[in-house]
Amino acid sequence: MCRILFGFIALLFSGDLQSQSDSLFIRKIADEVFQHSMAYGNLRVLTKTIGPRLSGTPQTYMAEKWGEEALKVAGADRVYLQQCNIPHWVRGGKDQAAVIMDNDHQLLQVIALGNSVSTKRGGITAPMILINDFEELEQRKNELKGKIVFYNYPFNPNFVNTLFAYFDAVPYRALGPSRAAKYGAVGVVVRSMSSSTDNFPHTGAMVYNDSFPKVPALAVGLQDADKLAALVARNKNPSLYISTNAHTLPDTIGFNVIGEWKGSEFPDQYIVVGGHLDSWDPAEGAQDDGAGCVHSIEVLRALKAVGYKPRHTIRIVLFTDEENRGSGASKYASEAKAKNEKHIFALESDGGGFTPRSFSIGGSPEQISVFRSWLPLLNLYGVTDILTIGAGADVDPLVEAVGAVTGELIPDTQRYFDYHHAGNDVFEKVNKRELELGAINMAALIYLVDKYGL
Amino acid sequence: MCRILFGFIALLFSGDLQSQSDSLFIRKIADEVFQHSMAYGNLRVLTKTIGPRLSGTPQTYMAEKWGEEALKVAGADRVYLQQCNIPHWVRGGKDQAAVIMDNDHQLLQVIALGNSVSTKRGGITAPMILINDFEELEQRKNELKGKIVFYNYPFNPNFVNTLFAYFDAVPYRALGPSRAAKYGAVGVVVRSMSSSTDNFPHTGAMVYNDSFPKVPALAVGLQDADKLAALVARNKNPSLYISTNAHTLPDTIGFNVIGEWKGSEFPDQYIVVGGHLDSWDPAEGAQDDGAGCVHSIEVLRALKAVGYKPRHTIRIVLFTDEENRGSGASKYASEAKAKNEKHIFALESDGGGFTPRSFSIGGSPEQISVFRSWLPLLNLYGVTDILTIGAGADVDPLVEAVGAVTGELIPDTQRYFDYHHAGNDVFEKVNKRELELGAINMAALIYLVDKYGL
Repeated sequence: MCRILFGFIALLFSGDLQSQSDSLFIRKIADEVFQHSMAYGNLRVLTKTIGPRLSGTPQTYMAEKWGEEALKVAGADRVYLQQCNIPHWVRGGKDQAAVIMDNDHQLLQVIALGNSVSTKRGGITAPMILINDFEELEQRKNELKGKIVFYNYPFNPNFVNTLFAYFDAVPYRALGPSRAAKYGAVGVVVRSMSSSTDNFPHTGAMVYNDSFPKVPALAVGLQDADKLAALVARNKNPSLYISTNAHTLPDTIGFNVIGEWKGSEFPDQYIVVGGHLDSWDPAEGAQDDGAGCVHSIEVLRALKAVGYKPRHTIRIVLFTDEENRGSGASKYASEAKAKNEKHIFALESDGGGFTPRSFSIGGSPEQISVFRSWLPLLNLYGVTDILTIGAGADVDPLVEAVGAVTGELIPDTQRYFDYHHAGNDVFEKVNKRELELGAINMAALIYLVDKYGL
Repeated sequence: MCRILFGFIALLFSGDLQSQSDSLFIRKIADEVFQHSMAYGNLRVLTKTIGPRLSGTPQTYMAEKWGEEALKVAGADRVYLQQCNIPHWVRGGKDQAAVIMDNDHQLLQVIALGNSVSTKRGGITAPMILINDFEELEQRKNELKGKIVFYNYPFNPNFVNTLFAYFDAVPYRALGPSRAAKYGAVGVVVRSMSSSTDNFPHTGAMVYNDSFPKVPALAVGLQDADKLAALVARNKNPSLYISTNAHTLPDTIGFNVIGEWKGSEFPDQYIVVGGHLDSWDPAEGAQDDGAGCVHSIEVLRALKAVGYKPRHTIRIVLFTDEENRGSGASKYASEAKAKNEKHIFALESDGGGFTPRSFSIGGSPEQISVFRSWLPLLNLYGVTDILTIGAGADVDPLVEAVGAVTGELIPDTQRYFDYHHAGNDVFEKVNKRELELGAINMAALIYLVDKYGL
């Protein structure tokens, strides 16, 4: 019994020593990032020198050059490009809208949704019909013909994690236009998917159903959305004027930018860390997803700087075209599958540069419990939970393609939808230390996955 | 054995039911706050209509009126004022400084420290000596005579919780001027206590040691501090020009504003919830501590709105003069002691309106473990830890005076020292949802303390 007890204590003690050495190593990573991080400086160049990075624009190509250079500086053994066919939707000028009533008009803050068609030259004017949700749409389907539908579905404040409010509301943006066109609507204006207090309109991808006419679709700022709703509540029957020159050009090419750091034991097994280089066009794509790109580059830089030697090959992937069609993610996954590359883990950062809260992990219950067992090592740096709400769009295809375990950094979500796809997603809204804490937690997780496997 | 087991299961089950009912009640509080909170609107009025609230200024008195009204609207049974002697330090105009070298000068972003004396009219110019820390001060004490000491002690980035960096650096602001004057320095400039990337200087309280001459003391922005350090590193020997009209007038009066909500079972036992009404003067005191005031008022409003009936009497206290001398806190505590009022708990919010992370509790290990046992109820709303780093300055005197258990909301600290005591502590830096989450966690904690006692 004494021997058993001794063995048990030895086990406890060795576990403790191991966790102590991990804890010290992660502290080393944190000190390195807090003192020498290049994440914030990299983000400044990406956002302030290059700016908005809508797929197919010159800025996307400038961003690819930037990414190559930044990955080299961070210490990648090898940096290369992966060519992808990407969509080429253009805004074509300033989107406009106004509410018209009693021979008067008031301008509205609007922005065309991604993939929207244009209005006819000079815009269109039609009676507005306010629709609160899809149930009401079906009930009033006979009233829609010739009208502009204003979807006023709220971004539910009661969800503590705002991602759930987004998941709840986003069908109105993504699918609402075609569902209204089915019943003869000639245009759609959708309440922005946001919890902000300002009036910035928030764009984002919309997908037409080819069975129905393609109608122009725009998002409207929350203050203006409330104004429209107030008019309807007072039994006013306004018309809307909408105008956009948005249209889709033939596909063009874009590139995933990949920086590789060769593994010492398993060079043919990969760990992916990534974000997406493209952004919507009204601002600088600082939180979405400049932050994820510089997070990922910083993981490489910091782990190298503290002298870490990875067992598996680590690939930093700056994905092209996440926003419009996810073509960068598809391309990466299909090439990985074609080459039969073993991917043990793929981690993404696409929730902004806010203070970290958790990781979301896609894997088996056993794998998820491995991540949970690492929480005591991450708590100090802000990650206190492992969620299982899926990982992001850029790593998700790797589940089916190569059976990868996937993960996403989930920073605090309270401010994310203030800026998401809107004109205020600028560098100044990113806090340096919050950004750095994201990189610290990501680097720590990659270290643990690389060291212990999954 | 069967009966014991049954009893055990019944106990588990009843515990579960109880925690379920608490969980549902806290969800009700959260929904109420997310949907109808007055915290953000109240903060807008306090910051935008009234503005900076330096003790003794007319704005402090306007803020007291505002507080009375806001507490009445929130549903206090009774609102009253508690008169205090408060210090009356005035800035007396714009503080100025410049670095002078080779017959050239460059202006510096500075702000006089609270309680500083003025320079002579027109300012003073003297050779600058850069001192990195108190150890170096002692080593070079013979070099200080007739000079202006520039304390360049860094705000250590390696502390994840920035409060520790502040505790570490703040002696240079609070005590540094007299320690330099002891050796003949004629003025002091201190590196701002901040982790920001901008150049706003950060003021804050300084305390003279009456044994030494009182020398004027200012804080300098971080970018300018780095410039000064770079000059010294290049063996330049600049002089500094500093000018301030700061001076102290005789004490004046201020008021703690108290809103009371009578308890049904223990009306003579009190739970305090508070923040401080005063602020430093360069901006609007939005995070410090407008947020704490509106948090506290919202606790009352929300608990009333969901139909809660407190067992103990809840007092919302908007303290006067936290920043200069803590006279509001002393007054409240000494009156509580004089009246022998039993205070079971006193909770403060003075860490800003950022996303909540934890509460810090001052109490016995048993009491702290009671708070820890409530964490599963708070996790969803962002509070995942109970710290024991002490509670804030406004409730702390209640420990000695009446043996109260104390607590402080500890929101995420990454951004706090970007704004603390600086010109950018404005309403626009407060996020509505983050502010509301603070109020939700505070209301939940007050509900639990009131219901279960301590």
